[in-house]
Amino acid sequence: MNIIDIITKKRLNEELSKEELDYAFSGYLKNNIKDYQMSALLMAICINGMTDQEIFDLVDIFIKSGDCLDLSSLEGIKVDKHSTGGIGDKITLIIGPIVASLGVIVPKMSGRGLGYTGGTIDKLESIPGFKVNLTEEEFIQELKDVSFAVTSQTSNLCPLDKVIYALRDVTGTTESIPLIATSIMSKKIAGGADKILIDIKCGEGALIKNNEDALKLKDIMERIGNFYNRETICEVTDMNIPLGSNIGNAIEVMEAIEVLKGKKSRLTDLSIQLASEMVKVSLNISLEEAKTKVINSLESGMALEKFYQFVKYQGGKIEKLKVSEFKQEIKSEKAGVITNIKALNIGKLSCSLGAGRINKEDTIDYGVGIILNKQVGDVVNIGDTLFTLYKKNSNNITLNISEYYEIN
Amino acid sequence: MNIIDIITKKRLNEELSKEELDYAFSGYLKNNIKDYQMSALLMAICINGMTDQEIFDLVDIFIKSGDCLDLSSLEGIKVDKHSTGGIGDKITLIIGPIVASLGVIVPKMSGRGLGYTGGTIDKLESIPGFKVNLTEEEFIQELKDVSFAVTSQTSNLCPLDKVIYALRDVTGTTESIPLIATSIMSKKIAGGADKILIDIKCGEGALIKNNEDALKLKDIMERIGNFYNRETICEVTDMNIPLGSNIGNAIEVMEAIEVLKGKKSRLTDLSIQLASEMVKVSLNISLEEAKTKVINSLESGMALEKFYQFVKYQGGKIEKLKVSEFKQEIKSEKAGVITNIKALNIGKLSCSLGAGRINKEDTIDYGVGIILNKQVGDVVNIGDTLFTLYKKNSNNITLNISEYYEIN
Repeated sequence: MNIIDIITKKRLNEELSKEELDYAFSGYLKNNIKDYQMSALLMAICINGMTDQEIFDLVDIFIKSGDCLDLSSLEGIKVDKHSTGGIGDKITLIIGPIVASLGVIVPKMSGRGLGYTGGTIDKLESIPGFKVNLTEEEFIQELKDVSFAVTSQTSNLCPLDKVIYALRDVTGTTESIPLIATSIMSKKIAGGADKILIDIKCGEGALIKNNEDALKLKDIMERIGNFYNRETICEVTDMNIPLGSNIGNAIEVMEAIEVLKGKKSRLTDLSIQLASEMVKVSLNISLEEAKTKVINSLESGMALEKFYQFVKYQGGKIEKLKVSEFKQEIKSEKAGVITNIKALNIGKLSCSLGAGRINKEDTIDYGVGIILNKQVGDVVNIGDTLFTLYKKNSNNITLNISEYYEIN
Repeated sequence: MNIIDIITKKRLNEELSKEELDYAFSGYLKNNIKDYQMSALLMAICINGMTDQEIFDLVDIFIKSGDCLDLSSLEGIKVDKHSTGGIGDKITLIIGPIVASLGVIVPKMSGRGLGYTGGTIDKLESIPGFKVNLTEEEFIQELKDVSFAVTSQTSNLCPLDKVIYALRDVTGTTESIPLIATSIMSKKIAGGADKILIDIKCGEGALIKNNEDALKLKDIMERIGNFYNRETICEVTDMNIPLGSNIGNAIEVMEAIEVLKGKKSRLTDLSIQLASEMVKVSLNISLEEAKTKVINSLESGMALEKFYQFVKYQGGKIEKLKVSEFKQEIKSEKAGVITNIKALNIGKLSCSLGAGRINKEDTIDYGVGIILNKQVGDVVNIGDTLFTLYKKNSNNITLNISEYYEIN
C-alpha cells in the first residue's frame, strides 16, 4: 500500500477501503504521512465526498486513535450536547444546569474557540478562578456530586481529530460534511455519553450555510450515533443573526445567568427547546412532559442554583465576573425597523475587539465584547443605541453601521 | 488576499484571478505559502480543472518566475522537441541529429527521468565522458557549431515549475491536463525556441491514459504556444507497448544508433514522422518534402554523422558505451502469437533492475536494462527467447511472464 495510490484513488472518486483510510490517517498521526499528502487527500475528500462506509470506517479510526472515557461508574443516563458553533452561542451554560437539575448527568468536554465563534471553555475561563483542565477522576467525581461538569478535552481523546482539525483549518478544507460529521461524532462517542444532542447551527454566521447541507449532516451524524448504539438527536437551528444579545466571554456568561434568572428571549426559547430534547431522550418521556420539567426547573430557580453549584465546584468566583469599563455606544443614523443583524460581521467585530482568536497563539481578553441593544424587528429612531462595544481601552472605534445592522 | 480564501474559491470551482494565482504560486516559491496549502490547491485544480484564462495566466507566472533563454544570437529557425514520457522513448537522440543535419537548430533542454519513464539526460550520461551540464554560453556555442545540443535544465529557468513538479509527484496530483500543459509549455517558451513539437504519449505506459485527455492536452498546449507566437505542433502517439526494442540507458543509446544506421522498425517510422513535422514547420515546406529530406538524411548517413559530432562535442566517448555483462534470457513457456507487451510493467521491471529512479535520491545503473527480442505480432514457440534482462549481477530473477507478454 502507498499513499500516492490512495490519494489518487480518492482524486478519481473511488471508494477507499478501511485499510487504506487507516494507512493514510493513522499513518499521519504517526508522522509517516506528510502534511502535504494529507492536505491533498482532505481536499479530494472535500470535493468528491465520502461514502457512508468510508465515514463509518473513518469514525472508527478516529475513536481508536486514542482513549475512550469510561463513565460506567456513574449511575443513570449520561447525555452529551454539542453545537457546531455560532455567534453568541452560550446555550451549554444554560441547558447543562437545567438538564442536570432534573437528575440527568451531563458530561461535557469542550473546546476553545477558533475563528469567529467562541468556545465554552473560553467563556468559563472568564470567571475568575474557574478551572477548565480537570483530570478524568475530578471530572467523574464532579458528575457524581453535581451531575454537570465541563472540562477541556484531554489529550488522549481522539488525538487524530486534533491534528486533522488543525490541518483542515489552514488548508481551506473545513467545509466538508463527512469530515465535520467524523470530527464531531468520534469525539462524542469517545466521550462516553449514552445519548447525544447535536445543535447544528445553520446560516450566514455558521460553518454550515444552507439547510440542505445541515440536513445531510443531521442524517449522517444520527446514523453514526445509531451505529454505535448512542441515541443521537440533531436539531438544525438558525444562525443568520447572533444568538441572544451578548457576544464575548464574561458578557456571555452574564447573559446565561440572566436567562437562568428568568429573562425571556429567542435564546430562552431555543434553550428550552434543546433542553427538552435532552430530557426527553434521557428520561424516555414525551417532549411535552420534558418541556414542563424544563420550564419548572427554570422558574423554580433549580437551574440557576445548579449553575452556581457547578461554577463553585470548579473553583469559579462568579461574584468577581466583570466586563471592561471602556464602553462605546453605537447609535443609529437612521430611523426604521431592524430587518437583519449580520451574525458573521458581528462575530468578526467581537474577535477584533479581542474576544476571539484568529490564530491559535492569540490570547483572549475576557472582558471585551458586544451587547446588542436592539434586535431584529425592533423600531429605532435616529440616535437610539443599536449596540454597545466593550473595549480594551478608551480609543474610539469607527465603523460602518450598515455592515452590522440593516434598517429599513 | 489570503491563501485560505484562494484555496476555498478553487475548491468551490470558481475562477481564480491572475492576482490570486500569483499570490499562491509565486508566494509558494518564496516560501510564504506552505507545502500543505499548495498541495490542497493543486488537488482542487486536479479535480475541478482550470479555465483557459487561468492556464494562460499560470503559464505567464511560471515563465516570469525565472529567466528566459535568449537564442536571438543564433541565425535561422530554432525548433524544440518534447515528449510527455514513455517506456523506451529515445526519439530525441534520433530526430535531434536528423533535423540538425538539415540545417535547423535544435536546442534541447532535458530533464532526468523519474518514475518508470527514462530521461534523455540519463541516457546521454550512459556515454562515458558525456557532459550534460552546459553553461548558457557553451550551449549556444554548440548550437552555432553543431546545430544540436542537449543540456540539463538550468536552475534559473522556470524555478516555479521545479518546486511544483516535485510537490505534485508526492501528492497524487500529476495527472492534471492544465498542470501538465502549464509545466511543459512554460519551460518550452522560456527555452527560447521559435517552433515547438510536442510528442504526447498516450496509453497504459504513459501519464496520459486515453485519447480524449491527449486531445485536450494537444488543444490547450497548441493554444498556449500560439498565444506566445511560438508555433506549436502536438502529435499524439501510442504508448500502450514499449517504443522500440531496448529499454534502459546505454542500451537505448545503442538502439538509437541502430536506427540512425538504417534499422527499420515502428521506432524508425515514428522518428521519421516526428522529424518530418519538425522540418516542415521549421523550413515552411510541405510534409511530403520534409519527409523526403528526413529519409535522405537517414539513408545518406548525415544524421548518424551529426549524432557522432554532437556526442564528441559534449565529451562523450561513444566507443566506450557498454551494457552489463550479466544477461538472463526469458523464454516463452507457451506457443502462439504475441498480442500485447505491457509497457508499464516493462518500465517497472527496467526500473527494478536499476535503470530508473523511484525516489529522487536513487542512483542509476547505466548498463542495465531490457531488450525485447520479440514484438507484438511475432509468432513464438515454447523455449523461444521473449526478452533479455541485463542485470547488475548474476543473481537469477524469477518473474511471471504473463505480466509482461500476452501470448495467444
